Amino acid sequence: MTTKYLLREDQIPRHWYNILGDLRSPPEPVLHPGTKKPVTPDDLAPLFPMALIEQEMSAQKEIPIPEEIREVLAKWRPSPLFRAHALEKKLGTRSHIYYKYEGVSPSGSHKPNTAVAQAYYNAKAGVKRLATETGAGQWGSSLAFAGQIFGLAVTVYMVKISYEQKPYRRSMMQTFGAEVFASQTNRTNAGRKILEADAASNGSLGIAISEAVEDAATHDDTKYSLGSVLNHVCMHQTVIGLEAQEQMKLAGEYPDVVIGCHGGGSNFAGIALPFARDKMNGKDVRLLAAEPTSCPTLTKGVYAFDYGDTVGMTPIVKMHTLGHEFMPPGIHAGGLRYHGAAPLVSKLVADGLVEAIAYPQKACFEAAVTFARTEGIIPAPESSHAIKAAIEEARRADAEGKTRVILFNLSGHGHFDLAAYDAYFAGKLEDYEYPKEAVERALTTLPLVQA
Amino acid sequence: MTTKYLLREDQIPRHWYNILGDLRSPPEPVLHPGTKKPVTPDDLAPLFPMALIEQEMSAQKEIPIPEEIREVLAKWRPSPLFRAHALEKKLGTRSHIYYKYEGVSPSGSHKPNTAVAQAYYNAKAGVKRLATETGAGQWGSSLAFAGQIFGLAVTVYMVKISYEQKPYRRSMMQTFGAEVFASQTNRTNAGRKILEADAASNGSLGIAISEAVEDAATHDDTKYSLGSVLNHVCMHQTVIGLEAQEQMKLAGEYPDVVIGCHGGGSNFAGIALPFARDKMNGKDVRLLAAEPTSCPTLTKGVYAFDYGDTVGMTPIVKMHTLGHEFMPPGIHAGGLRYHGAAPLVSKLVADGLVEAIAYPQKACFEAAVTFARTEGIIPAPESSHAIKAAIEEARRADAEGKTRVILFNLSGHGHFDLAAYDAYFAGKLEDYEYPKEAVERALTTLPLVQA
Repeated sequence: MTTKYLLREDQIPRHWYNILGDLRSPPEPVLHPGTKKPVTPDDLAPLFPMALIEQEMSAQKEIPIPEEIREVLAKWRPSPLFRAHALEKKLGTRSHIYYKYEGVSPSGSHKPNTAVAQAYYNAKAGVKRLATETGAGQWGSSLAFAGQIFGLAVTVYMVKISYEQKPYRRSMMQTFGAEVFASQTNRTNAGRKILEADAASNGSLGIAISEAVEDAATHDDTKYSLGSVLNHVCMHQTVIGLEAQEQMKLAGEYPDVVIGCHGGGSNFAGIALPFARDKMNGKDVRLLAAEPTSCPTLTKGVYAFDYGDTVGMTPIVKMHTLGHEFMPPGIHAGGLRYHGAAPLVSKLVADGLVEAIAYPQKACFEAAVTFARTEGIIPAPESSHAIKAAIEEARRADAEGKTRVILFNLSGHGHFDLAAYDAYFAGKLEDYEYPKEAVERALTTLPLVQA
Repeated sequence: MTTKYLLREDQIPRHWYNILGDLRSPPEPVLHPGTKKPVTPDDLAPLFPMALIEQEMSAQKEIPIPEEIREVLAKWRPSPLFRAHALEKKLGTRSHIYYKYEGVSPSGSHKPNTAVAQAYYNAKAGVKRLATETGAGQWGSSLAFAGQIFGLAVTVYMVKISYEQKPYRRSMMQTFGAEVFASQTNRTNAGRKILEADAASNGSLGIAISEAVEDAATHDDTKYSLGSVLNHVCMHQTVIGLEAQEQMKLAGEYPDVVIGCHGGGSNFAGIALPFARDKMNGKDVRLLAAEPTSCPTLTKGVYAFDYGDTVGMTPIVKMHTLGHEFMPPGIHAGGLRYHGAAPLVSKLVADGLVEAIAYPQKACFEAAVTFARTEGIIPAPESSHAIKAAIEEARRADAEGKTRVILFNLSGHGHFDLAAYDAYFAGKLEDYEYPKEAVERALTTLPLVQA
C-alpha cells in the first residue's frame, strides 16, 4: 500500500505552463480603467517589473523557471501527492482519491509558489520594496517570506478587522520580516479618505488594494504584488499540476476528474491548467472548480468586463463576476470571498473546458472534519470546498457503480483557522443562500455594456 | 545544490532501536511509589497494555515495528532532512548544518511517532479509551489523532490555564475527535480535592497527570498514555535518528555533533540514541542536549531517584532532576518545563556519552527568527533551543578554524506559538536566571536518600 508519491528535488518543473499559448481563441484584452482601451506594458510598468508584464502577456507555451527560483522552491517542492486510503475506507468508496498537498510550504498554502517568483523578478529589476494587501494573511505571509529570501522589504496592508481578529497571521508576517499595517492607514490618500469618513471602519480588501497600489505607484523603489487572478500568477502555480501529472504516473493512474477550490483562481489554475492542456489534446478528463454558495462567481456570475477591485482603480478584465461592488457574506473561507475570477479560468469555463459547482460552508466543514480524522491533516476552510467536491464525486461514482480516479488540490492547512472549526463544532456557523438581490444590484455597476 | 534528502516510504525503519540492550551497565530499576521496591509488570498493568510494558523493560536491541504502525507513519514519514544552506550563508559559517524536520506530522511535532505506536498496542489489547494529560497541547493533539486512527476514544486533561490561553490546540484535539477537559475537573478525586481547596486554581501538569492516571486506573476499558520520559516512548522516537543516519549517507557526510532540545527527553532520544550506538561502537560523534537555563535539569540537576510527577503518585526513577516539587518559570517553551529527564538520557549523561548545555529564552527566540527568515520554517519555542545550540556550534567551529558537520532535530513548528513570537518582538519576554534556591528547596524532597 503506497500512501504518498514523492518526486526528487531535480524533478521540480523546469518550465511553467502558459496556457495562453494554447488557447484556440485568445482571451479579451485587459482594459485601462480610465481610457477603457487595451492596456500597454507601459501602463503597467509603475506597478510591475517588465519581466512579469511580459509573462502576463506572453503566448510562449513554456516559460523557463530560473534556477534561483527552483532553489527556493526546493525548500518544500516537489510537494507530496497522497493517496487518501483512510478517507476512501471511511467513505466505503471504490473510487481512488488522490490529493496534492500544498500546505508544506513556509506559509502553509500554495501562495509562495508565485510569491517567490514575483520577489525574484522584482529583486532582479532593482526593486527595493514590495507593497501588497492581504485579507486573512495567507498571501501577506507568503510574500513576506519571499521578500526576505531575495532581500526585498515587504509592506503589507492587512484588512483592519483581520489584523485584529487574526493576530497570528500578522505575527507570522512579522517573523518573516515584513512590516504590517492595519488598513485603512493614514499612510495613503486612499486610507486617509476612508479614515476621515469613518475612523472606525473595519477596512476591506478593496481599500487595502487601493492603499498598496498607491504606495507602489508613489514610490520609485517600490512595486505592487498580487497573489491571485492575474495570468502570470496562475502560470506560476502550474508547478502544482505539472508535478501532480508526474506523481499520477508513479501511481499508475490518470485522473477522471481534477478538483480545486476556487476564489481568485490561482490554486485551481495551478492544479488544473496542465490537465486542461491534456484535455485540449483529447484526453478525457473533467476539471471541476469548487466555490462557496455565498460567493458563487463561476456558477452564478456573468462573464463580463469588470474591475478587479471594489473601488474601480484596477484594470478592467473579462471574467466571471458578481459585480465589483458585491460584498460576500463573512464565511470562514476568506480566500474564496472574491467577486471575480481569474480571466484565464473564466475563459476556460466559458469555453466549456472547466465545470464549476458551489457548496455551503457547513457541508464543507463537515467534509474537512472527516478528512482530518482520516488523513491527519486539518484543512484550510478554502481547501475544504475541494474535499467536499471530491467526496461528492466519489459518492456519485459509487451510485453509478463506477470506479473513478479523483484528484484534488489540498491548497493549505488550517492551523490558523481553528477558531472557525470551534465555531463549527459549537453549531455557530451559518449557511448563506445565494445572495441574489445583492448580486443583481452589483451587476448594474459593470463598467462596460457587454456585446 | 541539494536542499533536502528524502527517503522512500519503504525506507521507514522496520525496527526501533532499543538502547537498553546495548548499555554496558543496566540502568537502576524503577521503584514502586508505595513500597519503594522495584516495580513488576503487574504493577504497571492497570495503566499500560502488556506489549508496552514489555517494551519498557526489554533488552532486545531491535524491536520490529508492526506494519500497521508503519502504514500510519507513512502519512508523514520518512520526514525530510534539510541542509540549511540559507542559514549557513546568513551566519557566514564554513560548517555544514543539517536538520531533521518533525513538524510535518499531523500535530506538527515528533509526538505522533509514539502516539501512533501506543494507540496501536492499546487497541490490539482491546482497550477502548486512552486517558492522558497535556500542557500546551502538543501531546494531547498527537494522541487524539492516533486514537482516532485506531478507533480509540481519547480523553485529554489539559492544564486549565493552557486550555484557556491556547484554545487552538484544544480545537485541534477536538477536530481530531478527542474529548478535552480543563484540569482540574470534578471527574476525579484528585481534581475534586484541588477544586475544594482552590476553585480558581490554574491547574498544573502534575494535577493533570494525577487526573489521567486516576481515570485510567478506575476504568476497566481505559489505559493511560504518556508522551515522553519512559523507555518505550524514547524508543518509538528512534525512527528519527535511524532515518537521519540514512539521510546523512545520502548527503555523503557524518555529523560531528548531533543536537536536540531537551525537556522530558523524547525528541532528544529520538535523534540521538541511534548515534549513541555508533558512539559506543567507537564513532567520534558528540551528542548535545539543549535545555532552558530556567529549567536546567541536565546541567544543574542531581542524578537521583525521584517521582515523575509533581504530587508523587508515579513510580520513582533514577534520573537527572531538579526535585519533583520544583515549579519552573513560565517560559514559552512549555514542553521543556519538566523537573526531570528520561532515565535513559540521564544514564547517558551520567556515563559521559551525552553532553548538555542551557540557553536563556530570548537568545533562543533570536535564533528562531534568524532560522525562520532563512529556512522558511517558524520553529516551536522548544526546538529553538536546538537551533541556538547548532548556531553556537557553528560559530565555535569558525573561531577554531574548523569545518564541522552539525545535525539537529527540528522537533516541531511554531504555528501555535506565535503569541510567544509577538511577545519577543514586543520586548516583553523575560530571561530567568537559574532558580538556585527553588531547586535547592525542591531537592530536599527527594523520596530516597542516595547511596
